[in-house]
Amino acid sequence: MATRARASAEQEPAARFEAVRRLSRDIAAPLSDADATIQPMPDASPAKWHLAHTTWFFETFVLRDHVDWYRPFDERYAYLFNSYYEGEGERQDRPKRGMLSRPSLAELLDYRRHVDEALLRALPQLPEQAVELLELGLNHEQQHQELMLMDMLAAFAENPLLPAVWQTPGSTAAPLPEPVQWIENRSGIHRIGHEGPGFAFDCEGPGHEVLLRPHALADRLVTNGEWLSFIEDGGYTQPALWLSDGWARVREQEVEAPLYWIRSDAGWSRFGLDGLKPVNAAEPVCHISYYEADAFARWAGARLPTEAEWEAAASESDPAGGNQLDRAGPVRPTGSGEMFGDVWQWTMSAFLPHPGFEPAQGTVGEYNGKFMCGQMVLKGASCATPRGHSRASYRNFFYPHQRWQFAGLRLARDL
Amino acid sequence: MATRARASAEQEPAARFEAVRRLSRDIAAPLSDADATIQPMPDASPAKWHLAHTTWFFETFVLRDHVDWYRPFDERYAYLFNSYYEGEGERQDRPKRGMLSRPSLAELLDYRRHVDEALLRALPQLPEQAVELLELGLNHEQQHQELMLMDMLAAFAENPLLPAVWQTPGSTAAPLPEPVQWIENRSGIHRIGHEGPGFAFDCEGPGHEVLLRPHALADRLVTNGEWLSFIEDGGYTQPALWLSDGWARVREQEVEAPLYWIRSDAGWSRFGLDGLKPVNAAEPVCHISYYEADAFARWAGARLPTEAEWEAAASESDPAGGNQLDRAGPVRPTGSGEMFGDVWQWTMSAFLPHPGFEPAQGTVGEYNGKFMCGQMVLKGASCATPRGHSRASYRNFFYPHQRWQFAGLRLARDL
Amino acid sequence: MATRARASAEQEPAARFEAVRRLSRDIAAPLSDADATIQPMPDASPAKWHLAHTTWFFETFVLRDHVDWYRPFDERYAYLFNSYYEGEGERQDRPKRGMLSRPSLAELLDYRRHVDEALLRALPQLPEQAVELLELGLNHEQQHQELMLMDMLAAFAENPLLPAVWQTPGSTAAPLPEPVQWIENRSGIHRIGHEGPGFAFDCEGPGHEVLLRPHALADRLVTNGEWLSFIEDGGYTQPALWLSDGWARVREQEVEAPLYWIRSDAGWSRFGLDGLKPVNAAEPVCHISYYEADAFARWAGARLPTEAEWEAAASESDPAGGNQLDRAGPVRPTGSGEMFGDVWQWTMSAFLPHPGFEPAQGTVGEYNGKFMCGQMVLKGASCATPRGHSRASYRNFFYPHQRWQFAGLRLARDL
Amino acid sequence: MATRARASAEQEPAARFEAVRRLSRDIAAPLSDADATIQPMPDASPAKWHLAHTTWFFETFVLRDHVDWYRPFDERYAYLFNSYYEGEGERQDRPKRGMLSRPSLAELLDYRRHVDEALLRALPQLPEQAVELLELGLNHEQQHQELMLMDMLAAFAENPLLPAVWQTPGSTAAPLPEPVQWIENRSGIHRIGHEGPGFAFDCEGPGHEVLLRPHALADRLVTNGEWLSFIEDGGYTQPALWLSDGWARVREQEVEAPLYWIRSDAGWSRFGLDGLKPVNAAEPVCHISYYEADAFARWAGARLPTEAEWEAAASESDPAGGNQLDRAGPVRPTGSGEMFGDVWQWTMSAFLPHPGFEPAQGTVGEYNGKFMCGQMVLKGASCATPRGHSRASYRNFFYPHQRWQFAGLRLARDL
Repeated sequence: MATRARASAEQEPAARFEAVRRLSRDIAAPLSDADATIQPMPDASPAKWHLAHTTWFFETFVLRDHVDWYRPFDERYAYLFNSYYEGEGERQDRPKRGMLSRPSLAELLDYRRHVDEALLRALPQLPEQAVELLELGLNHEQQHQELMLMDMLAAFAENPLLPAVWQTPGSTAAPLPEPVQWIENRSGIHRIGHEGPGFAFDCEGPGHEVLLRPHALADRLVTNGEWLSFIEDGGYTQPALWLSDGWARVREQEVEAPLYWIRSDAGWSRFGLDGLKPVNAAEPVCHISYYEADAFARWAGARLPTEAEWEAAASESDPAGGNQLDRAGPVRPTGSGEMFGDVWQWTMSAFLPHPGFEPAQGTVGEYNGKFMCGQMVLKGASCATPRGHSRASYRNFFYPHQRWQFAGLRLARDL
Repeated sequence: MATRARASAEQEPAARFEAVRRLSRDIAAPLSDADATIQPMPDASPAKWHLAHTTWFFETFVLRDHVDWYRPFDERYAYLFNSYYEGEGERQDRPKRGMLSRPSLAELLDYRRHVDEALLRALPQLPEQAVELLELGLNHEQQHQELMLMDMLAAFAENPLLPAVWQTPGSTAAPLPEPVQWIENRSGIHRIGHEGPGFAFDCEGPGHEVLLRPHALADRLVTNGEWLSFIEDGGYTQPALWLSDGWARVREQEVEAPLYWIRSDAGWSRFGLDGLKPVNAAEPVCHISYYEADAFARWAGARLPTEAEWEAAASESDPAGGNQLDRAGPVRPTGSGEMFGDVWQWTMSAFLPHPGFEPAQGTVGEYNGKFMCGQMVLKGASCATPRGHSRASYRNFFYPHQRWQFAGLRLARDL
Repeated sequence: MATRARASAEQEPAARFEAVRRLSRDIAAPLSDADATIQPMPDASPAKWHLAHTTWFFETFVLRDHVDWYRPFDERYAYLFNSYYEGEGERQDRPKRGMLSRPSLAELLDYRRHVDEALLRALPQLPEQAVELLELGLNHEQQHQELMLMDMLAAFAENPLLPAVWQTPGSTAAPLPEPVQWIENRSGIHRIGHEGPGFAFDCEGPGHEVLLRPHALADRLVTNGEWLSFIEDGGYTQPALWLSDGWARVREQEVEAPLYWIRSDAGWSRFGLDGLKPVNAAEPVCHISYYEADAFARWAGARLPTEAEWEAAASESDPAGGNQLDRAGPVRPTGSGEMFGDVWQWTMSAFLPHPGFEPAQGTVGEYNGKFMCGQMVLKGASCATPRGHSRASYRNFFYPHQRWQFAGLRLARDL
Repeated sequence: MATRARASAEQEPAARFEAVRRLSRDIAAPLSDADATIQPMPDASPAKWHLAHTTWFFETFVLRDHVDWYRPFDERYAYLFNSYYEGEGERQDRPKRGMLSRPSLAELLDYRRHVDEALLRALPQLPEQAVELLELGLNHEQQHQELMLMDMLAAFAENPLLPAVWQTPGSTAAPLPEPVQWIENRSGIHRIGHEGPGFAFDCEGPGHEVLLRPHALADRLVTNGEWLSFIEDGGYTQPALWLSDGWARVREQEVEAPLYWIRSDAGWSRFGLDGLKPVNAAEPVCHISYYEADAFARWAGARLPTEAEWEAAASESDPAGGNQLDRAGPVRPTGSGEMFGDVWQWTMSAFLPHPGFEPAQGTVGEYNGKFMCGQMVLKGASCATPRGHSRASYRNFFYPHQRWQFAGLRLARDL
């Protein structure tokens, strides 16, 4: 019996590995070699780079470190596709990732095959530590799947032709959601942070108690329609609504709407993976910075939730529910009314270590800890997050000015 | 009796007002008109600007708004000396404050006299709200007294002649402090934040409960001697010790020591308000960024305290004790062993609103709230903080890269 | 007879048109879609962009303006592929040309076919003015052929793999050239500038007299071997050899050798269209800025020639001689000893209008005149210049800091 | 008799030295220590710096190098007040000259006295070479007198109070000048450049022949009234009028008028050393870049003169005539109708070496030669040029974008 369970456990990782790896290829499927090469800004990476970097992660931390017989596909790739692991040596400057027209997309798909085959072959004999790194690698790849969708959108948005990544039929107009209901959340001492079995990133733990004060959360996300009211009410022109750093950005970059919104005589459109479409008032607002989220909340007489409030509220929601990524395609927020999905939700909490946080050992310990400064936590999941990847303790993080991620907001208020 | 108490209450504010205002003048006393005019970097302001801006604060929010008979000294000063109050209209660009060779230092001292006389004359009849603004103004001026000392040091440090602001005799060598003792601090639910009578800035409140986990704090500040060990051990050359943003700065700006440290064949010197002197190993380290404090703590196998931990520990210390500013002069951290004084202490807490925070009404509500993003909290007080200004709930804040403030660190660790 | 001559004249332009257009395609032949898309720096354009822009030139100024029946391939291309003609409306920002992953290389080759077919069909009936624009377009395309080679080299040089655009067998070592002979050039009044029949760019005319003083020109170009002596003699470390702006660049960018030179333990290599090869001491030095050329000349006790001196000396040389571009391939300077070819030769003359210069009428009048400020003239032709394109009156021009063009130098001196 | 003549020759330099040195002090007389300390932009230096740098020039190249008994006033000044002489070692970064609040203005006036006394004492025994350097130093100081006036204007223009450097009564309206008359200038071979006795900067020589083609020059400078017509005709909005680099600047910096012009409801005013005054249509336009001068000329159907044309035309004019600087005060262009004075006149000639140019020997050889790239020649003299300083061969030079100098234009055209 033990043997059988063991076999099944071996089979499962293989299937899971293949499924995750396949999704990355599927996301890149509509891309030409050129599409997959360009880099629209230093924050965003070429799709080819994502495909190769996720592969390098498995090759380095699983195969190179734990599989004697493995021979690297190309020694030079370590320099090209290391992201930021100082422990792994020098690497291509981030703003120059878009210069890698070679290796070609086809060569990098070969690279993926080479590593996939080796990994599947090595899998049954992998030591425990390598299995954990494999799981880390899969979660890492899922993060890059969302990044690929973000970066592909950013790249296509730089093209004056505004090509759709995926063509879609026109969507039927969704009904406007009901006015927000305020849901009283728990208060007092509550336990958050990851603990127990199951994969989580190092930064999600350890589990720990937090003290919550009386408050309520909105039962749904802020919509485009509500955002249009904010715009029409002069939201982008009143300094009193804004954090000082946010107001400086608004003025310097002449921000007047979410990223990818374009104004024409016919009103506001938004560019997405499905091309240029009219802004749909019923859908959740997306591609806003922390500064914008914060200003909107102030304008609305509310505030953003704290990470702990959000996590406490989500502890009984299904993290695999809502509008999340099931297969490659032109995802967009549509508004499911659930706690997870559609857009990542800005919180008013800075991305700092949980009490008692210890980074993982070794080079992978650079994974999250070294980014714990200057960024804000987002919770939930977005339409571009692979379903099953997120959970209540998940801590996404971005700088307050960043807007190219699928980010929106849910309001909170004190009781 | 009531009358007499009233009279005394009237007298007291006047004396306090005169004392605070005098200290600003005393700090500026060693400066020539030119010294008081230059601006060494956008973050720092000329001494003249501080002298005038603090005066504008009283003139605007107390005299203009609450005293009928008051006539402004010069209508044009509002443009020159408003700092960042959007509600008060356009103003001189911050990086151009160093272009104000006119008005002269003498004219601005006249401006101060004009406002001081009017304020003292108006004081007995000021309405309650104006008295509160007066108190705010005095605390505001105390903040600028410390800023003046910081900015004067920054300005003189740009001069290749490295002139001392104040000449001092050589100090006798202090004995090295004992090894750190770890003091177990309270855990469980504790109340922090300002509440009750007495002045506090809006961001210090409201009082609220926090949950502390078992931890200990060092009984003293980190010293220059310990910092030299960090340097000698390659602290500035090992990326694994650093936050990612911090490491980028270290590389880009070739940081290899605290600000104002200069290496020569004879070893390390540091520039201060008393000129260039050898680094004293016994004194608390000063002029370090959050990145440096965080890297040092990691190197030392410890961490920075949270704001709540620090505040809980300080709740029974005397906030007016230790090495703080009593009179104008070449202050420097010397190491008193107390909780307050010498240097502001970086915490690992971001400067975010306390739960339930509401900014003050009106333009002065821009005071703190709009800076609640991207900065870290520092607690305590420094040798440049006017004694009596700080308290346990006090929240100083700077961006993680900033170093020109009198900032150092005290270590903490989990139990 | 007249009829026959006419027919022949009609046939000739067609053959010439086809040959020029074919060469561009041949140059791009080794490029993938991705290779042809990336932009290594704002000064350089993607190969795809060159292929399309040259086509847009014919489409716009010949077909659109002179051929009734012509229908544009895609109306949106005008925005994408206009270079800098203000008279033709808004256009893609130059530093963003590398964002055009779409249209694909294949689509742009279709675009070329579409325009080529229309142009060949329209050719027999083209009015005189259009025939002139056709000739201008062909010369324009030849310029872009050289730019393509320059920009492809710049793009591949950004790739850490340093791929060769074209693989070549190792070349046999060339013998070192003889020491320079000084050739006395004519002095007194001489006529330069284009006049008479034959195509020339507007900036080459009008013909005019210049006064030459006694001087001599070197009989050959400066070699890599001589440049190595300059380096070894501290050429890049002595400010007295450099123009002030040049010295600032050398320090800021840590320049220590020509562009594309790489130092290793085995000595200097240089990256070229044929990949990374050892520096060949016998070959002409290439990829140097005006600042470097000027510093070298000062070091050598000589100077650069003036444009007029060079042009006078070249008036009896064959402009189609020497090492110029005959077919697509890994061209490099080899040193022919002729006046034209190998590398463009920096002169000490600024690119300013010849006396009596009038720009061409219409939008094409923006061709050269508006660049007559801040740039220096280069004369001759390079190994990347299509043979037959240049002539003695030809005026190439670059900013003094630019180095990615095939530029070297020939020394001059006063007699 | 010889003795007496000798004595007189000795006396004359002393008087001249004293007069030149006095004028610098007089120019600085209205400045406070603070006024003399601030630096409005990297191109401009503080007045204190000019006062000290000119003194350092005499101290270094005359006293230190040629007078045994001389002891420097302060060894540290060499670092502070060297401008750009690489041969004289390291120096204060140019953009940081505004950080020198110490030494004070009073100390630097002491420095001047110290050097002046030493120089006057050494003068009778100075060797020939030192006398030449003294003459160079006096001409150098005159250049800095004009720079001081330019830089003082730039500094006061940064002050929102727009203080006048010198108060003046309102000037009476000048009558508009007559329409331009075109004066035919000589053509054929003409000799320009400095030769023969009398002081000239190294870059003015050697004398040499140039070939002039038939052309005419306007008999007067372009006026503010004409410039207003250019503005009203959309001069700043039509790209076809502009050099490419100039148009990029106009757009990026939103240029719409000469520097220091301010538009209000009451029309255009201009800020000058006499404060803010209405633009006077009769006066020569001033504070324009080369780009603006060139665009205006194109708009007017004319061109700028070449350096040789201008110099040939000026060869019989009195270089000491017109509106030039006689004593310290609020100089401004008023329009004298002479060849010299009012404003420096942009030519269409780049600042390049005259044929046969050799820089002076030694460190002073860095004086002009190393700036011979990227700048354009201006001829004549301005209202801020000390009378007697300029001559027909004088070559002033600025980058094409610079505007803070007293520069205007005179039109030319081909015949």
